[in-house]
Amino acid sequence: MIGSSRSIWREGKVVHVIDQTRLPHHTQVKQLTTLAEVAQAIQDMVVRGAPLIGVTAAYGVALALQAAADDASLATAVQTLIATRPTAVNLRWAVEHVAAQLATVAPAARAEHALLLADELAQADVHTNEAIGEHGAALLQQRWQALGYPARLNVLTHCNAGRLGCVDWGTALAAIYKAHAAGVPVHVWMDETRPRNQGASLTTWELAGRGVPATLIVDNAGGLLMQQGQVDVCIVGADRISARGDVCNKIGTYLKALAAQAHAIPFYVAAPLSTLDWGIVDGVHEIEIEQRSPREVTHISGRNEAGEVVTVQLAPDGTAALNPAFDVTPAVLVTAIVTERGVVPASHAGLASLREPALA
Amino acid sequence: MIGSSRSIWREGKVVHVIDQTRLPHHTQVKQLTTLAEVAQAIQDMVVRGAPLIGVTAAYGVALALQAAADDASLATAVQTLIATRPTAVNLRWAVEHVAAQLATVAPAARAEHALLLADELAQADVHTNEAIGEHGAALLQQRWQALGYPARLNVLTHCNAGRLGCVDWGTALAAIYKAHAAGVPVHVWMDETRPRNQGASLTTWELAGRGVPATLIVDNAGGLLMQQGQVDVCIVGADRISARGDVCNKIGTYLKALAAQAHAIPFYVAAPLSTLDWGIVDGVHEIEIEQRSPREVTHISGRNEAGEVVTVQLAPDGTAALNPAFDVTPAVLVTAIVTERGVVPASHAGLASLREPALA
Repeated sequence: MIGSSRSIWREGKVVHVIDQTRLPHHTQVKQLTTLAEVAQAIQDMVVRGAPLIGVTAAYGVALALQAAADDASLATAVQTLIATRPTAVNLRWAVEHVAAQLATVAPAARAEHALLLADELAQADVHTNEAIGEHGAALLQQRWQALGYPARLNVLTHCNAGRLGCVDWGTALAAIYKAHAAGVPVHVWMDETRPRNQGASLTTWELAGRGVPATLIVDNAGGLLMQQGQVDVCIVGADRISARGDVCNKIGTYLKALAAQAHAIPFYVAAPLSTLDWGIVDGVHEIEIEQRSPREVTHISGRNEAGEVVTVQLAPDGTAALNPAFDVTPAVLVTAIVTERGVVPASHAGLASLREPALA
Repeated sequence: MIGSSRSIWREGKVVHVIDQTRLPHHTQVKQLTTLAEVAQAIQDMVVRGAPLIGVTAAYGVALALQAAADDASLATAVQTLIATRPTAVNLRWAVEHVAAQLATVAPAARAEHALLLADELAQADVHTNEAIGEHGAALLQQRWQALGYPARLNVLTHCNAGRLGCVDWGTALAAIYKAHAAGVPVHVWMDETRPRNQGASLTTWELAGRGVPATLIVDNAGGLLMQQGQVDVCIVGADRISARGDVCNKIGTYLKALAAQAHAIPFYVAAPLSTLDWGIVDGVHEIEIEQRSPREVTHISGRNEAGEVVTVQLAPDGTAALNPAFDVTPAVLVTAIVTERGVVPASHAGLASLREPALA
């Protein structure tokens, strides 16, 4: 068992996750015991965030092997899980990492071994994110110093790159947590992040829970705040980073990066090295953008006056909608990338310096 | 009586408006008979859109004078109405225009005269917007031609600069209606326009009603679409334009203008000359930005499964939110401004060329 303050933990052969579709109004744990349940949970965004879906998928492989551990079952599990979310490279990385290790294990021993491999990945994710947080916090501290120690350091973030997107700590929010703990007077502008409102429902919940001062804004407001000098630094997560540093992240990130450049505001991206897709150079043209249901645009869920979470329709019947889930911020707009191994420029050379020899 | 296909019309001493807070789920007419009701309707955005609130405010003066037509009553009406929405300059312009004309009329004759002045303003608004539409449609036609007559001309718009924001036709949407009618194969990307979702609830309703092909997107999506070559031209309205061409419009406009510039996409602003504030040069620093209730960010209204319009809470209890209603797009990002007198560069010289001698 991993501690229940995490977003995912295992008890025996049952994987527990916080159902993020129910937050912030209900904190509910969902149990996953089969491959199908894991695939559905990833697809429906019961779990979301690139690092967390990687770990969840690793548990998905392990749960699949409890039923049948032959090579065909392993291959099916890998394919099923990779198909759930096409954009996040961590998912593919985690599933392939686990599968590669299991391929050399006798089928009879795979079921138990797979659970331990997934546990290891979960534990490694915590260490990775804590290291990202340390490196990111140092950047925030430097920014605060460079600005002459203002009473408030205004940090803008998009979506939820927090502990709910990881096993613990988060990526962008790890930096904020660590800076806050170190005495930097951070105040966070939280983009609500339509259409799924991860900022309004998850980042609000996370930051309030850890006592970090924060204010919710609509995604449209960031440009004005930058224009008014109310944003000192931006930090976001990533779903995939190309070898030259183009950053695929939640839809709307690109608009904020353009505005940050226009106002000479540092724009940092915090992500584990597993987010890097070395096989892609030109992220703008080569990364497949996941298209999600138009219903996420035309409808929204929230808590009604009776306390029930209900879905309401925003647009008239028959309205066509397009719902791309991500965009790509070209490397030139990214001030630096914060990884567990340190901070590097968003460039081929910068990222290559971090590459593990084993992956070369 | 003005025709009921309009957004506002008068029958005797009763002013009728479409209640835009009920759209798109209910098309309901609201009757206004007193100054207080008019002020409340503007404040609560039962009517919205710079030209329409100007006309509505003119009727507000007229309704106030039905009760008492002395100079003090006139002054009170002017002050009350101008205070309802600080950003839209048309409101101030319309109210001051009516008041100035009434000041020279004997109090006994003012009540009736004020109604006719407001009717005149309403009628003038229709002519103005139709002219804006003609000039704007010519720009869209030229863009279609310049691109080699593609099968679809993708036009991105923000908020609702349509007939619902005016007495009829609209500003940005007038250009789209006229281009559509002239055979240009326009397809409109409609930003939903959080927090009040005028795009999702009003632009969708308007364009569907007039048969213009259109797709709803979240405000975050425009950057990706531009990056993918899926936006050929942007056209938006304005709430206030400075003498040098800085454009104050619905929050989020600025982010789209920055992205349009990054992708060399024309960014047009369509507005009547009454939107010009000759007294302001630097729009970015001089225009007061209206701050609205945080509740518009933390809550949203929509239609539930039973068909009722209900409000649901999006963020956790106690979440702080900031809700600036407008931002300012610097003139350098605006390709041209489309007015009833023609299309001019967003510059002091361009706008001055349109200025009426009487206003000089």
